[in-house]
Amino acid sequence: MSEAYVHGYHPREKERLEDQAGTLVDLLHADTAYPHGSLVLEVGCGVGAQTVTLAQRSPNARFLSVDVSADSIAEATRRVDGAGLDNVGFQQADLFALPFAAESFDHVFVCFVLEHLSRPAAALAGLSRLLRPGGSITVIEGDHGSAYFYPDSPAAHAATQCLVTLQREAGGNALIGRQVYPLMVAAGFDAVRVSPRMVYVDSSRPDLVDGFTLKTFTAMIEGIREPAIGAGLIEPESFDVGVRDLRRTTEADGVFCYTFFKGVGEKRGRA
Amino acid sequence: MSEAYVHGYHPREKERLEDQAGTLVDLLHADTAYPHGSLVLEVGCGVGAQTVTLAQRSPNARFLSVDVSADSIAEATRRVDGAGLDNVGFQQADLFALPFAAESFDHVFVCFVLEHLSRPAAALAGLSRLLRPGGSITVIEGDHGSAYFYPDSPAAHAATQCLVTLQREAGGNALIGRQVYPLMVAAGFDAVRVSPRMVYVDSSRPDLVDGFTLKTFTAMIEGIREPAIGAGLIEPESFDVGVRDLRRTTEADGVFCYTFFKGVGEKRGRA
Repeated sequence: MSEAYVHGYHPREKERLEDQAGTLVDLLHADTAYPHGSLVLEVGCGVGAQTVTLAQRSPNARFLSVDVSADSIAEATRRVDGAGLDNVGFQQADLFALPFAAESFDHVFVCFVLEHLSRPAAALAGLSRLLRPGGSITVIEGDHGSAYFYPDSPAAHAATQCLVTLQREAGGNALIGRQVYPLMVAAGFDAVRVSPRMVYVDSSRPDLVDGFTLKTFTAMIEGIREPAIGAGLIEPESFDVGVRDLRRTTEADGVFCYTFFKGVGEKRGRA
Repeated sequence: MSEAYVHGYHPREKERLEDQAGTLVDLLHADTAYPHGSLVLEVGCGVGAQTVTLAQRSPNARFLSVDVSADSIAEATRRVDGAGLDNVGFQQADLFALPFAAESFDHVFVCFVLEHLSRPAAALAGLSRLLRPGGSITVIEGDHGSAYFYPDSPAAHAATQCLVTLQREAGGNALIGRQVYPLMVAAGFDAVRVSPRMVYVDSSRPDLVDGFTLKTFTAMIEGIREPAIGAGLIEPESFDVGVRDLRRTTEADGVFCYTFFKGVGEKRGRA
Protein backbone atom coordinates (compact mmCIF):
# COMPACT_ATOMS: atom_id res chain seq x y z
CA MET A 1 0.00 0.00 0.00
CA SER A 2 1.35 3.41 -0.96
CA GLU A 3 1.84 5.62 2.05
CA ALA A 4 2.01 8.76 -0.06
CA TYR A 5 -1.31 9.94 1.27
CA VAL A 6 -2.45 7.56 3.94
CA HIS A 7 -3.35 9.62 6.95
CA GLY A 8 -2.16 8.68 10.36
CA TYR A 9 1.50 8.06 9.67
CA HIS A 10 2.86 11.56 9.12
CA PRO A 11 3.96 14.04 11.76
CA ARG A 12 1.73 16.86 10.53
CA GLU A 13 -1.22 14.50 10.58
CA LYS A 14 -0.72 13.82 14.25
CA GLU A 15 -2.17 17.14 15.33
CA ARG A 16 -5.12 16.67 13.03
CA LEU A 17 -5.88 13.29 14.50
CA GLU A 18 -5.62 14.71 17.99
CA ASP A 19 -8.05 17.47 17.10
CA GLN A 20 -10.38 14.91 15.62
CA ALA A 21 -10.17 12.69 18.63
CA GLY A 22 -10.78 15.56 21.04
CA THR A 23 -13.86 16.81 19.22
CA LEU A 24 -15.45 13.46 18.56
CA VAL A 25 -14.73 11.55 21.73
CA ASP A 26 -18.21 11.68 23.15
CA LEU A 27 -19.96 11.14 19.84
CA LEU A 28 -17.96 8.03 19.03
CA HIS A 29 -17.01 6.50 22.36
CA ALA A 30 -19.47 7.56 25.06
CA ASP A 31 -21.25 4.20 24.87
CA THR A 32 -18.12 2.03 24.93
CA ALA A 33 -17.13 0.67 28.33
CA TYR A 34 -15.57 -2.68 29.19
CA PRO A 35 -16.17 -4.65 32.40
CA HIS A 36 -13.78 -5.06 35.30
CA GLY A 37 -10.99 -7.47 34.48
CA SER A 38 -11.72 -7.89 30.78
CA LEU A 39 -8.90 -8.00 28.28
CA VAL A 40 -9.40 -5.80 25.21
CA LEU A 41 -7.41 -5.90 21.99
CA GLU A 42 -7.21 -2.52 20.24
CA VAL A 43 -6.16 -3.07 16.64
CA GLY A 44 -4.45 -0.26 14.74
CA CYS A 45 -4.09 2.09 17.67
CA GLY A 46 -2.00 4.56 15.67
CA VAL A 47 -0.70 7.39 17.85
CA GLY A 48 -3.11 6.45 20.61
CA ALA A 49 -5.80 9.02 19.93
CA GLN A 50 -8.53 6.56 20.85
CA THR A 51 -6.44 4.50 23.28
CA VAL A 52 -6.38 7.15 26.01
CA THR A 53 -10.14 7.59 25.79
CA LEU A 54 -10.81 3.87 25.84
CA ALA A 55 -8.54 3.23 28.80
CA GLN A 56 -9.88 6.18 30.77
CA ARG A 57 -13.46 5.07 30.24
CA SER A 58 -12.77 1.49 31.30
CA PRO A 59 -10.20 1.90 34.09
CA ASN A 60 -10.71 -1.67 35.33
CA ALA A 61 -10.24 -3.31 31.96
CA ARG A 62 -6.83 -4.08 30.50
CA PHE A 63 -5.96 -3.05 26.95
CA LEU A 64 -3.43 -4.45 24.55
CA SER A 65 -3.02 -1.97 21.71
CA VAL A 66 -1.24 -2.97 18.53
CA ASP A 67 -0.13 -1.09 15.45
CA VAL A 68 2.07 -1.90 12.48
CA SER A 69 4.12 1.29 12.96
CA ALA A 70 6.80 1.37 15.65
CA ASP A 71 6.81 5.18 15.55
CA SER A 72 3.09 5.31 16.19
CA ILE A 73 3.45 2.84 19.05
CA ALA A 74 6.18 5.01 20.57
CA GLU A 75 3.99 8.09 20.39
CA ALA A 76 0.94 6.23 21.72
CA THR A 77 2.99 4.97 24.63
CA ARG A 78 4.05 8.53 25.48
CA ARG A 79 0.45 9.69 25.39
CA VAL A 80 -0.83 6.90 27.57
CA ASP A 81 1.98 7.47 30.06
CA GLY A 82 1.30 11.21 29.98
CA ALA A 83 -2.31 10.51 30.87
CA GLY A 84 -1.17 8.51 33.89
CA LEU A 85 -2.79 5.31 32.67
CA ASP A 86 -1.46 1.95 33.75
CA ASN A 87 -3.98 -0.38 32.09
CA VAL A 88 -2.56 -0.31 28.54
CA GLY A 89 0.15 -2.40 26.96
CA PHE A 90 1.49 -1.93 23.44
CA GLN A 91 2.87 -4.30 20.85
CA GLN A 92 4.04 -3.75 17.29
CA ALA A 93 2.27 -6.22 15.01
CA ASP A 94 0.66 -6.64 11.62
CA LEU A 95 -3.11 -6.95 11.64
CA PHE A 96 -2.93 -9.96 9.34
CA ALA A 97 -0.27 -11.74 11.44
CA LEU A 98 -1.18 -11.01 15.02
CA PRO A 99 0.94 -13.15 17.39
CA PHE A 100 -1.87 -14.17 19.73
CA ALA A 101 -3.56 -17.47 20.50
CA ALA A 102 -7.14 -18.10 19.48
CA GLU A 103 -9.78 -16.81 21.89
CA SER A 104 -7.22 -14.73 23.81
CA PHE A 105 -9.35 -11.63 24.18
CA ASP A 106 -12.67 -10.75 25.74
CA HIS A 107 -13.25 -7.83 23.39
CA VAL A 108 -11.79 -6.31 20.24
CA PHE A 109 -11.85 -2.65 19.22
CA VAL A 110 -11.07 -1.48 15.67
CA CYS A 111 -11.33 2.22 14.82
CA PHE A 112 -10.37 3.88 11.51
CA VAL A 113 -8.48 0.80 10.35
CA LEU A 114 -10.64 -1.12 7.87
CA GLU A 115 -10.71 1.87 5.51
CA HIS A 116 -7.05 1.21 4.73
CA LEU A 117 -7.37 -2.51 4.02
CA SER A 118 -8.03 -4.27 0.74
CA ARG A 119 -9.55 -7.27 2.57
CA PRO A 120 -11.57 -5.81 5.43
CA ALA A 121 -13.89 -8.82 5.81
CA ALA A 122 -10.89 -11.16 6.01
CA ALA A 123 -9.35 -8.88 8.61
CA LEU A 124 -12.51 -9.03 10.71
CA ALA A 125 -12.69 -12.80 10.36
CA GLY A 126 -9.10 -13.02 11.59
CA LEU A 127 -9.96 -10.89 14.59
CA SER A 128 -12.93 -13.10 15.32
CA ARG A 129 -10.52 -16.00 15.81
CA LEU A 130 -8.81 -14.08 18.63
CA LEU A 131 -12.05 -13.37 20.43
CA ARG A 132 -13.57 -15.68 23.02
CA PRO A 133 -17.08 -16.92 22.22
CA GLY A 134 -19.59 -14.36 23.41
CA GLY A 135 -17.00 -11.59 23.30
CA SER A 136 -17.71 -8.33 21.51
CA ILE A 137 -16.14 -6.51 18.61
CA THR A 138 -16.54 -2.78 18.03
CA VAL A 139 -15.83 -1.30 14.61
CA ILE A 140 -15.81 2.43 13.87
CA GLU A 141 -15.28 3.88 10.40
CA GLY A 142 -15.96 7.16 8.61
CA ASP A 143 -17.44 7.52 5.13
CA HIS A 144 -16.28 10.37 2.94
CA GLY A 145 -19.34 9.97 0.74
CA SER A 146 -21.38 11.10 3.73
CA ALA A 147 -19.89 14.60 3.51
CA TYR A 148 -22.23 17.29 2.25
CA PHE A 149 -22.50 20.92 3.08
CA TYR A 150 -23.97 24.34 2.50
CA PRO A 151 -23.18 26.16 0.35
CA ASP A 152 -22.97 23.12 -1.89
CA SER A 153 -19.95 23.01 -4.20
CA PRO A 154 -19.07 20.63 -7.03
CA ALA A 155 -15.42 21.66 -6.61
CA ALA A 156 -15.43 20.67 -2.94
CA HIS A 157 -16.98 17.32 -3.84
CA ALA A 158 -14.35 16.87 -6.58
CA ALA A 159 -11.52 17.55 -4.13
CA THR A 160 -13.06 15.08 -1.66
CA GLN A 161 -13.43 12.54 -4.44
CA CYS A 162 -9.66 12.74 -5.00
CA LEU A 163 -9.16 11.30 -1.52
CA VAL A 164 -11.69 8.55 -2.26
CA THR A 165 -9.84 7.71 -5.47
CA LEU A 166 -6.37 7.80 -3.89
CA GLN A 167 -7.49 5.57 -1.08
CA ARG A 168 -9.10 3.13 -3.51
CA GLU A 169 -5.97 3.04 -5.66
CA ALA A 170 -3.97 2.26 -2.52
CA GLY A 171 -6.26 -0.69 -1.82
CA GLY A 172 -8.46 1.02 0.76
CA ASN A 173 -12.01 2.29 0.81
CA ALA A 174 -12.94 5.78 1.98
CA LEU A 175 -16.64 4.92 1.67
CA ILE A 176 -16.45 1.98 4.04
CA GLY A 177 -18.60 3.44 6.82
CA ARG A 178 -21.86 2.49 5.12
CA GLN A 179 -20.47 -1.01 4.69
CA VAL A 180 -19.72 -1.77 8.34
CA TYR A 181 -22.90 -3.80 8.80
CA PRO A 182 -22.48 -6.15 5.82
CA LEU A 183 -18.76 -6.55 6.54
CA MET A 184 -19.35 -7.57 10.15
CA VAL A 185 -22.10 -9.97 9.12
CA ALA A 186 -19.89 -11.42 6.37
CA ALA A 187 -17.14 -11.97 8.94
CA GLY A 188 -19.52 -14.14 10.93
CA PHE A 189 -20.41 -11.91 13.87
CA ASP A 190 -23.77 -12.28 15.60
CA ALA A 191 -26.21 -9.65 16.80
CA VAL A 192 -24.55 -6.95 14.73
CA ARG A 193 -25.95 -3.52 15.46
CA VAL A 194 -24.68 -0.47 13.59
CA SER A 195 -25.48 3.07 14.62
CA PRO A 196 -24.56 6.15 12.64
CA ARG A 197 -22.76 8.97 14.43
CA MET A 198 -23.51 12.05 12.44
CA VAL A 199 -21.44 15.17 12.94
CA TYR A 200 -23.68 18.14 12.19
CA VAL A 201 -21.93 21.49 12.16
CA ASP A 202 -23.40 24.96 11.88
CA SER A 203 -22.14 28.24 13.27
CA SER A 204 -24.00 27.75 16.55
CA ARG A 205 -21.41 25.04 17.26
CA PRO A 206 -18.08 26.87 16.96
CA ASP A 207 -16.07 24.04 18.53
CA LEU A 208 -17.14 21.71 15.73
CA VAL A 209 -16.67 24.39 13.05
CA ASP A 210 -13.07 24.68 14.13
CA GLY A 211 -12.38 21.18 15.43
CA PHE A 212 -14.18 19.17 12.79
CA THR A 213 -14.97 21.07 9.60
CA LEU A 214 -11.72 23.03 9.52
CA LYS A 215 -9.11 21.03 11.42
CA THR A 216 -10.35 17.53 10.67
CA PHE A 217 -12.12 17.28 7.34
CA THR A 218 -10.77 20.28 5.44
CA ALA A 219 -7.27 19.66 6.80
CA MET A 220 -7.48 16.05 5.61
CA ILE A 221 -8.42 17.17 2.11
CA GLU A 222 -5.73 19.83 2.09
CA GLY A 223 -3.28 17.10 3.05
CA ILE A 224 -3.75 15.25 -0.24
CA ARG A 225 -3.18 18.26 -2.51
CA GLU A 226 0.20 17.12 -3.82
CA PRO A 227 -0.58 13.43 -4.32
CA ALA A 228 -3.93 14.22 -5.95
CA ILE A 229 -2.38 16.67 -8.37
CA GLY A 230 0.63 14.44 -8.88
CA ALA A 231 -1.60 11.52 -9.79
CA GLY A 232 -3.36 13.69 -12.37
CA LEU A 233 -6.70 13.40 -10.61
CA ILE A 234 -7.39 17.13 -10.62
CA GLU A 235 -5.98 20.48 -11.75
CA PRO A 236 -4.33 22.56 -9.01
CA GLU A 237 -6.80 25.42 -9.54
CA SER A 238 -9.82 23.14 -9.22
CA PHE A 239 -8.45 21.53 -6.09
CA ASP A 240 -7.80 24.92 -4.50
CA VAL A 241 -11.33 26.07 -5.32
CA GLY A 242 -12.62 22.92 -3.64
CA VAL A 243 -10.64 23.62 -0.48
CA ARG A 244 -11.73 27.26 -0.53
CA ASP A 245 -15.36 26.09 -0.77
CA LEU A 246 -14.89 23.68 2.12
CA ARG A 247 -13.57 26.59 4.17
CA ARG A 248 -16.55 28.64 3.01
CA THR A 249 -18.83 26.22 4.87
CA THR A 250 -17.28 27.47 8.14
CA GLU A 251 -18.78 30.94 7.74
CA ALA A 252 -21.83 32.10 9.70
CA ASP A 253 -24.38 30.66 7.24
CA GLY A 254 -22.43 27.50 6.46
CA VAL A 255 -23.30 23.93 7.37
CA PHE A 256 -21.19 20.78 7.24
CA CYS A 257 -22.33 17.16 7.67
CA TYR A 258 -20.33 13.97 8.04
CA THR A 259 -21.19 10.56 9.41
CA PHE A 260 -19.21 7.88 11.20
CA PHE A 261 -20.58 4.38 11.62
CA LYS A 262 -20.14 2.34 14.77
CA GLY A 263 -20.89 -1.36 14.72
CA VAL A 264 -20.94 -3.76 17.64
CA GLY A 265 -21.21 -7.52 17.22
CA GLU A 266 -20.62 -10.70 19.15
CA LYS A 267 -18.62 -13.78 18.43
CA ARG A 268 -20.88 -16.79 18.07
CA GLY A 269 -20.95 -19.28 20.87
CA ARG A 270 -21.46 -19.47 24.61
CA ALA A 271 -19.76 -16.90 26.78
CA MET B 1 -45.13 25.78 -9.78
CA SER B 2 -45.55 22.69 -11.92
CA GLU B 3 -47.38 19.96 -10.07
CA ALA B 4 -46.29 17.30 -12.54
CA TYR B 5 -44.03 15.75 -9.96
CA VAL B 6 -44.61 17.50 -6.67
CA HIS B 7 -45.27 14.85 -4.09
CA GLY B 8 -48.13 15.13 -1.69
CA TYR B 9 -50.96 16.09 -4.01
CA HIS B 10 -51.66 12.87 -5.84
CA PRO B 11 -53.83 9.99 -4.69
CA ARG B 12 -51.17 7.34 -5.12
CA GLU B 13 -48.76 9.48 -3.13
CA LYS B 14 -51.08 9.44 -0.17
CA GLU B 15 -50.17 5.93 0.83
CA ARG B 16 -46.51 6.68 0.48
CA LEU B 17 -46.79 9.67 2.77
CA GLU B 18 -48.70 7.59 5.30
CA ASP B 19 -46.01 4.95 5.23
CA GLN B 20 -43.41 7.62 5.66
CA ALA B 21 -45.23 9.22 8.54
CA GLY B 22 -45.76 5.89 10.29
CA THR B 23 -42.12 4.87 10.08
CA LEU B 24 -40.61 8.19 10.99
CA VAL B 25 -42.94 9.49 13.65
CA ASP B 26 -40.67 8.89 16.60
CA LEU B 27 -37.51 9.98 14.84
CA LEU B 28 -39.00 13.29 13.75
CA HIS B 29 -41.59 14.18 16.35
CA ALA B 30 -40.81 12.48 19.67
CA ASP B 31 -39.38 15.72 21.07
CA THR B 32 -42.20 18.00 19.94
CA ALA B 33 -44.88 18.72 22.57
CA TYR B 34 -46.82 21.90 23.15
CA PRO B 35 -48.07 23.17 26.52
CA HIS B 36 -51.64 23.14 27.80
CA GLY B 37 -53.74 25.81 26.18
CA SER B 38 -51.26 26.90 23.54
CA LEU B 39 -52.40 27.63 19.99
CA VAL B 40 -50.26 26.07 17.27
CA LEU B 41 -50.32 26.89 13.56
CA GLU B 42 -49.43 23.96 11.34
CA VAL B 43 -48.52 25.25 7.90
CA GLY B 44 -48.88 22.98 4.88
CA CYS B 45 -50.54 20.10 6.70
CA GLY B 46 -51.20 18.20 3.46
CA VAL B 47 -53.25 15.08 4.07
CA GLY B 48 -52.64 15.31 7.80
CA ALA B 49 -49.83 12.79 8.09
CA GLN B 50 -48.11 14.88 10.75
CA THR B 51 -51.26 16.53 12.10
CA VAL B 52 -52.55 13.41 13.84
CA THR B 53 -49.18 12.81 15.49
CA LEU B 54 -48.85 16.42 16.61
CA ALA B 55 -52.36 16.57 18.05
CA GLN B 56 -52.04 13.23 19.81
CA ARG B 57 -48.76 14.21 21.41
CA SER B 58 -50.10 17.54 22.65
CA PRO B 59 -53.71 16.77 23.59
CA ASN B 60 -54.10 19.96 25.59
CA ALA B 61 -52.87 22.28 22.85
CA ARG B 62 -55.09 23.48 20.02
CA PHE B 63 -53.96 23.21 16.41
CA LEU B 64 -54.98 25.20 13.38
CA SER B 65 -53.74 23.35 10.32
CA VAL B 66 -53.71 25.05 6.94
CA ASP B 67 -52.98 23.87 3.43
CA VAL B 68 -53.38 25.36 -0.02
CA SER B 69 -55.21 22.25 -1.30
CA ALA B 70 -58.90 21.80 -0.44
CA ASP B 71 -58.65 18.09 -1.27
CA SER B 72 -55.79 17.64 1.14
CA ILE B 73 -57.68 19.52 3.85
CA ALA B 74 -60.68 17.25 3.31
CA GLU B 75 -58.53 14.15 3.67
CA ALA B 76 -56.70 15.55 6.68
CA THR B 77 -60.03 16.31 8.32
CA ARG B 78 -61.18 12.73 7.79
CA ARG B 79 -57.98 11.41 9.34
CA VAL B 80 -58.13 13.65 12.36
CA ASP B 81 -61.78 12.76 12.89
CA GLY B 82 -60.98 9.08 12.43
CA ALA B 83 -58.36 9.37 15.16
CA GLY B 84 -60.98 10.82 17.48
CA LEU B 85 -59.12 14.09 17.93
CA ASP B 86 -61.02 17.28 18.81
CA ASN B 87 -58.14 19.71 19.17
CA VAL B 88 -57.53 20.41 15.49
CA GLY B 89 -59.18 22.92 13.17
CA PHE B 90 -58.50 23.23 9.45
CA GLN B 91 -58.48 26.11 7.04
CA GLN B 92 -57.64 26.34 3.36
CA ALA B 93 -55.10 29.11 2.84
CA ASP B 94 -52.01 30.11 0.90
CA LEU B 95 -48.81 30.19 2.91
CA PHE B 96 -47.96 33.60 1.49
CA ALA B 97 -51.40 35.09 2.25
CA LEU B 98 -52.40 33.62 5.57
CA PRO B 99 -55.54 35.36 6.87
CA PHE B 100 -54.40 35.74 10.47
CA ALA B 101 -53.52 38.73 12.61
CA ALA B 102 -49.96 39.36 13.72
CA GLU B 103 -48.86 37.49 16.83
CA SER B 104 -51.92 35.20 16.73
CA PHE B 105 -50.10 31.97 17.51
CA ASP B 106 -48.00 30.63 20.35
CA HIS B 107 -46.14 28.19 18.11
CA VAL B 108 -45.70 27.42 14.42
CA PHE B 109 -44.94 24.03 12.88
CA VAL B 110 -43.73 23.63 9.28
CA CYS B 111 -42.86 20.17 7.98
CA PHE B 112 -41.90 19.23 4.39
CA VAL B 113 -43.09 22.58 3.06
CA LEU B 114 -40.09 24.84 2.47
CA GLU B 115 -38.66 22.36 -0.05
CA HIS B 116 -41.44 23.36 -2.45
CA LEU B 117 -40.99 27.13 -2.16
CA SER B 118 -38.86 29.47 -4.22
CA ARG B 119 -38.65 31.97 -1.33
CA PRO B 120 -38.30 29.88 1.82
CA ALA B 121 -36.67 32.61 3.91
CA ALA B 122 -39.48 35.02 3.01
CA ALA B 123 -42.02 32.36 3.95
CA LEU B 124 -40.38 31.92 7.35
CA ALA B 125 -40.25 35.68 7.89
CA GLY B 126 -43.98 35.83 7.13
CA LEU B 127 -44.65 33.09 9.67
CA SER B 128 -42.59 34.95 12.23
CA ARG B 129 -45.06 37.83 11.98
CA LEU B 130 -47.88 35.50 13.08
CA LEU B 131 -45.97 34.27 16.10
CA ARG B 132 -46.12 35.93 19.50
CA PRO B 133 -42.78 37.14 20.87
CA GLY B 134 -41.10 34.26 22.65
CA GLY B 135 -43.10 31.70 20.67
CA SER B 136 -41.39 28.84 18.91
CA ILE B 137 -41.16 27.71 15.33
CA THR B 138 -40.30 24.15 14.32
CA VAL B 139 -39.09 23.41 10.80
CA ILE B 140 -38.51 19.90 9.43
CA GLU B 141 -37.11 19.18 5.97
CA GLY B 142 -35.44 16.31 4.18
CA ASP B 143 -32.37 16.56 1.95
CA HIS B 144 -32.09 14.26 -1.04
CA GLY B 145 -28.36 14.94 -1.23
CA SER B 146 -28.09 13.13 2.09
CA ALA B 147 -29.05 9.83 0.45
CA TYR B 148 -26.25 7.32 0.07
CA PHE B 149 -26.25 3.58 0.17
CA TYR B 150 -24.49 0.27 -0.22
CA PRO B 151 -23.98 -1.05 -2.80
CA ASP B 152 -23.18 2.38 -4.17
CA SER B 153 -24.59 3.11 -7.63
CA PRO B 154 -24.01 6.04 -9.98
CA ALA B 155 -27.31 5.16 -11.69
CA ALA B 156 -29.23 5.40 -8.43
CA HIS B 157 -27.63 8.76 -7.73
CA ALA B 158 -28.52 9.89 -11.27
CA ALA B 159 -32.17 8.90 -10.79
CA THR B 160 -32.23 10.74 -7.48
CA GLN B 161 -30.64 13.76 -9.10
CA CYS B 162 -33.58 13.86 -11.53
CA LEU B 163 -35.87 14.64 -8.60
CA VAL B 164 -33.48 17.32 -7.37
CA THR B 165 -33.47 18.88 -10.85
CA LEU B 166 -37.25 18.67 -11.32
CA GLN B 167 -37.85 20.23 -7.94
CA ARG B 168 -35.35 23.01 -8.68
CA GLU B 169 -36.95 23.70 -12.07
CA ALA B 170 -40.31 23.94 -10.31
CA GLY B 171 -38.87 26.57 -7.96
CA GLY B 172 -38.21 24.26 -5.03
CA ASN B 173 -35.11 22.81 -3.41
CA ALA B 174 -34.71 19.12 -2.65
CA LEU B 175 -31.42 19.84 -0.85
CA ILE B 176 -32.98 22.26 1.62
CA GLY B 177 -32.48 20.16 4.76
CA ARG B 178 -28.87 21.23 5.18
CA GLN B 179 -30.01 24.82 4.81
CA VAL B 180 -32.57 24.89 7.63
CA TYR B 181 -30.20 26.62 10.03
CA PRO B 182 -29.16 29.53 7.80
CA LEU B 183 -32.75 29.99 6.58
CA MET B 184 -34.13 30.24 10.10
CA VAL B 185 -31.38 32.63 11.12
CA ALA B 186 -31.97 34.73 7.98
CA ALA B 187 -35.67 34.90 8.83
CA GLY B 188 -34.74 36.51 12.13
CA PHE B 189 -35.36 33.69 14.60
CA ASP B 190 -33.40 33.55 17.84
CA ALA B 191 -31.77 30.60 19.57
CA VAL B 192 -31.99 28.45 16.46
CA ARG B 193 -30.97 24.86 17.11
CA VAL B 194 -30.92 22.33 14.30
CA SER B 195 -30.57 18.61 14.87
CA PRO B 196 -30.18 16.03 12.13
CA ARG B 197 -32.49 13.02 12.18
CA MET B 198 -30.66 10.35 10.28
CA VAL B 199 -32.51 7.31 9.02
CA TYR B 200 -30.05 4.45 8.94
CA VAL B 201 -31.36 1.26 7.36
CA ASP B 202 -29.76 -2.16 7.21
CA SER B 203 -31.38 -5.57 7.07
CA SER B 204 -31.47 -5.85 10.85
CA ARG B 205 -34.21 -3.19 10.66
CA PRO B 206 -36.80 -4.74 8.35
CA ASP B 207 -39.48 -2.16 9.19
CA LEU B 208 -37.26 0.59 7.85
CA VAL B 209 -36.15 -1.46 4.85
CA ASP B 210 -39.78 -1.76 3.83
CA GLY B 211 -41.23 1.44 5.26
CA PHE B 212 -38.45 3.83 4.39
CA THR B 213 -36.03 2.56 1.74
CA LEU B 214 -38.67 0.84 -0.37
CA LYS B 215 -42.00 2.57 0.28
CA THR B 216 -40.75 6.06 0.97
CA PHE B 217 -37.53 6.86 -0.85
CA THR B 218 -37.54 4.38 -3.73
CA ALA B 219 -41.28 4.91 -4.26
CA MET B 220 -40.70 8.65 -4.43
CA ILE B 221 -38.03 8.22 -7.10
CA GLU B 222 -40.18 5.74 -9.04
CA GLY B 223 -42.92 8.38 -8.95
CA ILE B 224 -40.93 10.81 -11.10
CA ARG B 225 -40.09 8.35 -13.88
CA GLU B 226 -42.39 9.89 -16.48
CA PRO B 227 -41.68 13.58 -15.77
CA ALA B 228 -37.93 12.93 -15.57
CA ILE B 229 -37.87 11.09 -18.87
CA GLY B 230 -40.34 13.55 -20.39
CA ALA B 231 -38.11 16.45 -19.43
CA GLY B 232 -35.17 14.75 -21.12
CA LEU B 233 -33.22 14.50 -17.87
CA ILE B 234 -32.40 10.82 -18.28
CA GLU B 235 -32.85 7.84 -20.59
CA PRO B 236 -35.54 5.34 -19.57
CA GLU B 237 -33.00 2.52 -19.33
CA SER B 238 -30.71 4.53 -17.05
CA PHE B 239 -33.57 5.55 -14.83
CA ASP B 240 -34.74 1.97 -14.48
CA VAL B 241 -31.24 0.82 -13.59
CA GLY B 242 -31.17 3.50 -10.91
CA VAL B 243 -34.44 2.28 -9.42
CA ARG B 244 -33.26 -1.32 -9.62
CA ASP B 245 -30.11 -0.33 -7.75
CA LEU B 246 -32.12 1.49 -5.07
CA ARG B 247 -34.14 -1.71 -4.62
CA ARG B 248 -30.87 -3.62 -4.46
CA THR B 249 -30.02 -1.75 -1.25
CA THR B 250 -32.95 -3.53 0.45
CA GLU B 251 -31.26 -6.93 0.19
CA ALA B 252 -29.59 -8.62 3.15
CA ASP B 253 -26.23 -6.89 2.70
CA GLY B 254 -27.68 -3.52 1.66
CA VAL B 255 -27.58 -0.25 3.58
CA PHE B 256 -29.50 2.97 3.00
CA CYS B 257 -28.95 6.35 4.65
CA TYR B 258 -31.02 9.52 4.57
CA THR B 259 -31.16 12.54 6.84
CA PHE B 260 -33.94 14.90 7.86
CA PHE B 261 -33.17 18.17 9.60
CA LYS B 262 -35.27 19.58 12.41
CA GLY B 263 -34.82 23.18 13.47
CA VAL B 264 -36.39 24.95 16.43
CA GLY B 265 -36.16 28.69 16.94
CA GLU B 266 -37.82 31.46 18.89
CA LYS B 267 -39.34 34.74 17.88
CA ARG B 268 -37.39 37.63 19.34
CA GLY B 269 -38.92 39.53 22.20
CA ARG B 270 -40.37 38.93 25.62
CA ALA B 271 -42.82 36.08 26.05
